[in-house]
Amino acid sequence: MHRKRARILMTVAVLIAVAGLLTLPASADEGMWTFDNPPVKQLKERYGFNPTQQWLDHVRLSSVRFNDGGSGSFISPGGLVLTNHHVARGQLQKVSTPEHNYVKDGFLAKTPAEELKCPDLELNVLMSMKDVTDRVRGAVKPGMSDKDALEARKAEIAKIEKESLDSTGLRSDVVTLYSGGEYWLYRYKKYTDIRLVFAPEVAAAFFGGDPDNFTYPRYDLDMAIFRVYEDGKPIKSPDFLKVSAKGPAPNDLVFVSGNPGSTDRLYTMARLKAARDVTYKLRLELVHRMLNVFRRYAAGGPEQARQADMMIFGLENAIKAFEGEYKGLKDPQIWKMRQQQEQEFRKRVAANPEWQKKYGDAWTQIEKAQQLLMTRLNQYAYRRMPGFRLPRLAETIYRYVTEVPKPDGKRLDGYHDAQLDSLRFRMFSPAPIYPGLEEALLADQLDLALNKLGPDDPFVKAALDGRSPAQEAKYLISGTKLADPAFRRELVKGGAAAVEASKDPLVAWAVKLEPQLRKMHDWFEDNVESVFTAAGEKIGEARFAVYGKSMYPDATFTLRLSYGSVRGYPMNGTKAPPMTTFYGLFDRAYSFGLKPPFLPPQRDFDKIKDLDLKTPLDFVSTCDIIGGNSGSPVINRDGELVGLIFDGNIESLVSRFAYDDVKSRAVAVDSAAIVEAMTKLYDTQYLLDEMQVTK
Amino acid sequence: MHRKRARILMTVAVLIAVAGLLTLPASADEGMWTFDNPPVKQLKERYGFNPTQQWLDHVRLSSVRFNDGGSGSFISPGGLVLTNHHVARGQLQKVSTPEHNYVKDGFLAKTPAEELKCPDLELNVLMSMKDVTDRVRGAVKPGMSDKDALEARKAEIAKIEKESLDSTGLRSDVVTLYSGGEYWLYRYKKYTDIRLVFAPEVAAAFFGGDPDNFTYPRYDLDMAIFRVYEDGKPIKSPDFLKVSAKGPAPNDLVFVSGNPGSTDRLYTMARLKAARDVTYKLRLELVHRMLNVFRRYAAGGPEQARQADMMIFGLENAIKAFEGEYKGLKDPQIWKMRQQQEQEFRKRVAANPEWQKKYGDAWTQIEKAQQLLMTRLNQYAYRRMPGFRLPRLAETIYRYVTEVPKPDGKRLDGYHDAQLDSLRFRMFSPAPIYPGLEEALLADQLDLALNKLGPDDPFVKAALDGRSPAQEAKYLISGTKLADPAFRRELVKGGAAAVEASKDPLVAWAVKLEPQLRKMHDWFEDNVESVFTAAGEKIGEARFAVYGKSMYPDATFTLRLSYGSVRGYPMNGTKAPPMTTFYGLFDRAYSFGLKPPFLPPQRDFDKIKDLDLKTPLDFVSTCDIIGGNSGSPVINRDGELVGLIFDGNIESLVSRFAYDDVKSRAVAVDSAAIVEAMTKLYDTQYLLDEMQVTK
Repeated sequence: MHRKRARILMTVAVLIAVAGLLTLPASADEGMWTFDNPPVKQLKERYGFNPTQQWLDHVRLSSVRFNDGGSGSFISPGGLVLTNHHVARGQLQKVSTPEHNYVKDGFLAKTPAEELKCPDLELNVLMSMKDVTDRVRGAVKPGMSDKDALEARKAEIAKIEKESLDSTGLRSDVVTLYSGGEYWLYRYKKYTDIRLVFAPEVAAAFFGGDPDNFTYPRYDLDMAIFRVYEDGKPIKSPDFLKVSAKGPAPNDLVFVSGNPGSTDRLYTMARLKAARDVTYKLRLELVHRMLNVFRRYAAGGPEQARQADMMIFGLENAIKAFEGEYKGLKDPQIWKMRQQQEQEFRKRVAANPEWQKKYGDAWTQIEKAQQLLMTRLNQYAYRRMPGFRLPRLAETIYRYVTEVPKPDGKRLDGYHDAQLDSLRFRMFSPAPIYPGLEEALLADQLDLALNKLGPDDPFVKAALDGRSPAQEAKYLISGTKLADPAFRRELVKGGAAAVEASKDPLVAWAVKLEPQLRKMHDWFEDNVESVFTAAGEKIGEARFAVYGKSMYPDATFTLRLSYGSVRGYPMNGTKAPPMTTFYGLFDRAYSFGLKPPFLPPQRDFDKIKDLDLKTPLDFVSTCDIIGGNSGSPVINRDGELVGLIFDGNIESLVSRFAYDDVKSRAVAVDSAAIVEAMTKLYDTQYLLDEMQVTK
Repeated sequence: MHRKRARILMTVAVLIAVAGLLTLPASADEGMWTFDNPPVKQLKERYGFNPTQQWLDHVRLSSVRFNDGGSGSFISPGGLVLTNHHVARGQLQKVSTPEHNYVKDGFLAKTPAEELKCPDLELNVLMSMKDVTDRVRGAVKPGMSDKDALEARKAEIAKIEKESLDSTGLRSDVVTLYSGGEYWLYRYKKYTDIRLVFAPEVAAAFFGGDPDNFTYPRYDLDMAIFRVYEDGKPIKSPDFLKVSAKGPAPNDLVFVSGNPGSTDRLYTMARLKAARDVTYKLRLELVHRMLNVFRRYAAGGPEQARQADMMIFGLENAIKAFEGEYKGLKDPQIWKMRQQQEQEFRKRVAANPEWQKKYGDAWTQIEKAQQLLMTRLNQYAYRRMPGFRLPRLAETIYRYVTEVPKPDGKRLDGYHDAQLDSLRFRMFSPAPIYPGLEEALLADQLDLALNKLGPDDPFVKAALDGRSPAQEAKYLISGTKLADPAFRRELVKGGAAAVEASKDPLVAWAVKLEPQLRKMHDWFEDNVESVFTAAGEKIGEARFAVYGKSMYPDATFTLRLSYGSVRGYPMNGTKAPPMTTFYGLFDRAYSFGLKPPFLPPQRDFDKIKDLDLKTPLDFVSTCDIIGGNSGSPVINRDGELVGLIFDGNIESLVSRFAYDDVKSRAVAVDSAAIVEAMTKLYDTQYLLDEMQVTK
């Protein structure tokens, strides 16, 4: 499974930092292409297909970004949005209560009135893209230091975003592509009134659980349906994808339109080496430790288990992904390939004196900055805001009230004018917060910092304030009122003065820690990020110079188009089939003696006679995807939705670093299974009617 | 799949030669134990099971060896024998005609009168085992050279076998165990009137074909039933295994009683190195080349395809097995483990001056003999009797008439008195021979010898006789009458004089080549085999001295008992289940769009409503098996047959060199599936009645 990737990455924060560099000309079905530069040549040569601008616009406008880390698409003219159950899982958890567990039991609104409003789900639709490279570059004046250049770029970007927001009312993000080879202004229609319509039981959506996660063959109905509202009414969505009741055939050309989170396909070798030799191991340790905290908490009882479910799922998912990536990174073949690519690229740059002068030193600069960062690795790993949601809310609120009064161009990333709407939406989310869970994680992470940095570390000293980690966590969490959104609003309303004077222990604590955290942030920006950005831009330009624009940028959680065909692959001595069927669901269930996670919902057994068991359930294609693509529609030539991306196979985890069309596969729910299940297993005929699906 | 292993090995002959050395004390569920030394301690400690002598005798007397390379068991008091379809496949092919393809269509005798007599199938039941180590060792006198010692041992063995045959009438084989640590006389009741009773369609037995071969999860009904006759009547078989209609449960203790062909678990490192660095690659080339010849032949039409079917299956099977073994051999972990084992063993020998004096030089001697053999590798690879069945019959006949008149102790292996009955049974087999196929393979192998050895090589010169390979093959095959068993009998009756005077071109050709081939044989025996045998005996003794007899010998295609439990394993990022079901059969069939080899027989679709699809179909256990074990019964504590071994998973191929209970698994047909299929799919109720199976 892919989605929670982006989220978890943020937790471990700065270690991996700014995503990738550029990519070599693509071969095979490779590439996550921007909609302004679709792989027209490859589509024509490999598949004899020539997408019209209308086709591309329709696909783009039907595609939806789930801002907490996934993708989706409109599937009816009335604002129905299809995504994965596991993309919806966070919201399902948030609208659940001790009495109603919608993750476990699923949810179905029989009428629009029963649709459940999500507390903090923002969806985006990409309305336009504009190249602003010249403007961003123009802000950097000759002779500027890397540090000043970074500031100048950031200020200009904030300005572009603000102007665009003011003039269009659309969410406006400047996206750095090709590691600075290009800057683009992406404008989004933003929706924040999203309501839950339908989700099957997690036992159907996530059949096979963590063992089957990131593997194939699979038998999952990993789907959920939301509806988008505006002004209290369902929106009209003229651009929607018609769900095919048939699904794709083997070898069919298919497309994936979604938001891959990040790839590191063209990290320089210096950065890859740091990841391979140090940071992956560290991240895995940290994530394992977090998972243990949540597991211990969940063992406390069914209600605790319900509260921790989402994080346990997310962390198990992250561990499996990281382990797969780490394994890929250690694969000598992958390593050699990447080395050769870099050597070849640098050789071609060096062969042209002008290029060599302009770009030649970029690799060494990155290497040095990376080495510098490694000397402070321990600080950056353990001196960070510990805990879960409440401590972060405290930090965000304090930053909000101190950053916003500054000129837009001088603020921290995330606090620019154009970003404030979305920020406030999250900051004031009414989603439930569980103090027990908050306290457990905070205590553990304080303990970790204490063990790793020692009691005399200034950050540890300030964070513990003479107490033990457990005492301090108890003191902070039991004393804070931040779980109440109204309290947060009031704090923000009072501005910096009110926050700094707050007696709320967690708020006061965040205020106290902020100078140290900010200092670390500034050091990273001045000494590492600025170098990575400047050198990255050089490498980006060099790549255009050497290879032209016959390529795609590394993933940036913005809309991309991938293409490929429905195809099995060689697996463990035999062949994995292009698709699976409902027969396989029951085979795997009985094979494991009907024990979870291999136990489908009772509904499946009750209605087995109604089901056409040979209906395709999941299928694989060669489309190039990664975490963030979860929930993406799989689309055929005719623009019909034939599948729903929900995972990559275990062999695809290496695709963070390199694409391989021999064994890497994207795993999708077959649209035929969606229709079959919605018809025979769930009473959703009224939705199928709205979706205009005919069987 | 396992079975054809032994056969193919013979084709590539001497390169790998005399099977393995001894094994270290077994851990986990490891071991292919002789019935005189069952793993009593392990069974007690690990499973709390204490097999009685009666239990062991019953299992042994119910077990049947298929002499052309497989295993089986009695399943009724009236002589019914259960084995794999793929063990039966050779006989199914031989009783088929252009009109009746029993491999493809299956076979069912509705009454005993319809049972089909097999042309050349010999079954053996192990009646007794006797330690004859002292007698064989006693034949070697102090001061004898390795060469003389080898001759003395062989003569004594022939004598023991002859005496036993004469006194008991039982087939009598002296078996070398623990590489000469022990010699045992095994006496068998021999059956040669074997009739085919039931076989399903190959599409059911070998569903998934070559891709799924040696893999799991599997969905194969790889079974066939024969009946044993004597004096024209079905025998009484009081020792038979009752087939369980239920099959095993996960984690059940189970046993496998069968005839593993060969393992190299304690080859010295010198011999392993030669295999890894040279011989595996060479063998794979040769086998690929043979496969290509048969494939080209099969492409000539449906009748040619029918004729070549068995060999194509066998060669594909061999290639997959060799590739898996080769991969295991190249695995640095396996290599290191084996190295450490040898170092540890040699260190313990060296630590005792007496042992060091007696055994210490054995490893170096083997290494030198191995190196010597490698200098003649090309000769041994390409100067051998080329072609398929007819050239070998010519060779066998000439050797028969020249060897048999000699004193028994002086003859070539295979021509001793005690072996002649079985030899004549094969030599005069009425099984059909296909001249087109014979000619194609002979031409190709002559061509290979010409290319590899050059036109001036004396063997090549003699073999081609001035013709091109194609001309010579055509001349020899079109001119010979050896396809007729009556002609063979007549030749043999005439003795050496008649054979040497024969005008049959193929016979004359074999007579002409024999001196060169015999010279090579003698050189190998004098310079390599004698050293391997003498040094192997030393290492065998040393192993007893160091480790005692808490171990099992390498496999020798004699009866062994393995044990383990029904258990899944970690696979490709997830878990493989302990068993599969009929649901899975249909899943995999529809997953691949009902295309062969993923297309079950039409019967399965016609009767799908009758089938209980959740019936277990195949299962895996940790039992330690290898090629030759195909068709072995899987037996529970109560002595019931709960499964039918037919394969190992891809991870188990390394078990030629080392056992691993984490991922290596034996794959069996579940007895519940056998009963379900025999009840619902095939009209075999009368057989189930005879088998006393109640559902």
